[in-house]
Amino acid sequence: MTSVLGELAVPIVQAPMAGGPSTPALAAAVSNAGGLGFVAAGYKTAVAMRDDIARTRAATARPFGANVFVPGRRTADPAAVAAYAERLAAQAERAGVALGTPAFDDDAFDAKLAALQDERVAVVSFTFGCPPADVVDDLQRIGTAVWVTVTDVEEARAAEDAGADALVVQGVEAGGHRGSFVDRDDRVDYGLLALLELVSAQVALPLVATGAIATGEAVAAVLVAGAAAAQVGTAFMRCPEAATAPAHRAALASGRPTGLTRAFSGRLARGIVNRLQAEHTSAAPIAYPEIHHLTAPLRAHGRSVGDPDLVNLWAGQTHELAQDAPAAEIVARLDRDARRAIADAERKLRRRGVTDPWDLI
Amino acid sequence: MTSVLGELAVPIVQAPMAGGPSTPALAAAVSNAGGLGFVAAGYKTAVAMRDDIARTRAATARPFGANVFVPGRRTADPAAVAAYAERLAAQAERAGVALGTPAFDDDAFDAKLAALQDERVAVVSFTFGCPPADVVDDLQRIGTAVWVTVTDVEEARAAEDAGADALVVQGVEAGGHRGSFVDRDDRVDYGLLALLELVSAQVALPLVATGAIATGEAVAAVLVAGAAAAQVGTAFMRCPEAATAPAHRAALASGRPTGLTRAFSGRLARGIVNRLQAEHTSAAPIAYPEIHHLTAPLRAHGRSVGDPDLVNLWAGQTHELAQDAPAAEIVARLDRDARRAIADAERKLRRRGVTDPWDLI
Repeated sequence: MTSVLGELAVPIVQAPMAGGPSTPALAAAVSNAGGLGFVAAGYKTAVAMRDDIARTRAATARPFGANVFVPGRRTADPAAVAAYAERLAAQAERAGVALGTPAFDDDAFDAKLAALQDERVAVVSFTFGCPPADVVDDLQRIGTAVWVTVTDVEEARAAEDAGADALVVQGVEAGGHRGSFVDRDDRVDYGLLALLELVSAQVALPLVATGAIATGEAVAAVLVAGAAAAQVGTAFMRCPEAATAPAHRAALASGRPTGLTRAFSGRLARGIVNRLQAEHTSAAPIAYPEIHHLTAPLRAHGRSVGDPDLVNLWAGQTHELAQDAPAAEIVARLDRDARRAIADAERKLRRRGVTDPWDLI
Repeated sequence: MTSVLGELAVPIVQAPMAGGPSTPALAAAVSNAGGLGFVAAGYKTAVAMRDDIARTRAATARPFGANVFVPGRRTADPAAVAAYAERLAAQAERAGVALGTPAFDDDAFDAKLAALQDERVAVVSFTFGCPPADVVDDLQRIGTAVWVTVTDVEEARAAEDAGADALVVQGVEAGGHRGSFVDRDDRVDYGLLALLELVSAQVALPLVATGAIATGEAVAAVLVAGAAAAQVGTAFMRCPEAATAPAHRAALASGRPTGLTRAFSGRLARGIVNRLQAEHTSAAPIAYPEIHHLTAPLRAHGRSVGDPDLVNLWAGQTHELAQDAPAAEIVARLDRDARRAIADAERKLRRRGVTDPWDLI
């Protein structure tokens, strides 16, 4: 079931970027270039997801995947959400926008799973949780490989137990939401390389590494560290095929720092620090998707008028390395540079000679 | 001046671990095994540093380095320090220990530099700041290479401007103190791989990568990502040559999570979360070395009675992978596994075929 990873011409997976940047054109371009494109189903209806899948299929004959959010539990404290809404009220008023209603929902999980039974995409990856074993089984039965996004060893073990075919190992460097099963304050924010070491030591599944991978050298690094492929998000956000908002594109091209925040969605995510993020991160409660719905009109307004201070500027830690170039070119460049980096390292090691350090002991 | 890096038989540098774990025996063992050992001069007098250098020299004929803390400025708020002391008072009383006096000092910077003019070690690495250009010049003039620890691109550029021969690029995964020039809240905690990408893009100096590197695969990863060597700390802490306290050794062997804290020293550092860290991290001010001196008697007491809840349990994010084995064996194992990882990746890429993805565009 994991053969899709082994059969990629290029070990590059396009990270699903829900909420805007991901498009069928981007997914198809990455798959056509030999990588694996992804339809980002998060925040969409099942019907909209199917539409994206159909458009992607129309643009590529190669395999691609779909990413689905696993619903959490309704644990948000209504008082904390109300207090946070109060805090945003002045900003919303200045923008002339009414804040959204902070409701809980499951992002149409069951409807999407039902649709994916018909769609039979090559891979379904899950974020924000581990699907139950029967969901995994149902997908595998129709030939769909199941990947689960993990941010620590405990999550990796749970995904293995549920029968996942591969793990998307997400480091804290990554842009957008942390894929953690449960968002909480007493977590360890593992760097990608550290997490690859820890997960490799405990779990035998193929790993897809993700988190601020923007160069071929970084792709090579995760392959050498044991990953089967690198999942790349921010590095595709400036592509013409991506639907990244103009204000977001401009921020990506800057060297401005990123930070982790719950200010936009109530769930921890990495974005370029703008005014809303700077002013409200310290106060934002753990309340997803309630805060997501609360801020949605403000963010939509910011995108439409081009005000970067109202928009969630999701970005990985290396966003300034993202290139404004067609996705196929980015895939090809990452692959070429990764091959070169590994060949160079191999050559250097050979030059270092055959001294066996065990002889020195 | 950077030739010491190029001439290492094994691209492994032993991280200086001030405050206990580092010993002349550990430094000599790593150098004898083909890597580069380090004397950790931090917290020591210049005389004690010279003694460590002499003992290291007596145990190895190979090159090794010395690490020196760059003094910061006296910026701690006395009221905040006093409030924090008040907070620790009950814990100190329970332990039957008087807290230390929270004084500022420069860790004998000038005396150490003067001594290093006589000692002519192969490398002096700096932490907590960039030495002025004349300090760099004075060391280079006597044949000592100068390395500077950096945690972001701005620091990397400053070190290049000061004339450094190489940069120690420290990711947030690393155990012990963050090497940042200035400790502050509005920083970005770069993951190692992301930081290597960013620094490589801006600075042409040789890079030594550090942060939770505990396996040969991780060593291979940073080499492929462009580093000239991997600096390894926590992975040596369980060696018989290290003077790691027994309570600390036991904690390292556990899978307990690490976190960033100023609770022990007033400067951000990564340690395994114990009671003192859990209870006081949120309240600890930026006040180094004042808080270091304040908590010193409490930590010393904890080490002597074997109470891990009073000790700063510095450790990188992969501490559970550290092995109880002689340092030479760890160096040899990391080197062997790194070579194997790169050779395997090279073979896999060749098997993937010569399909040039540029043809797919």
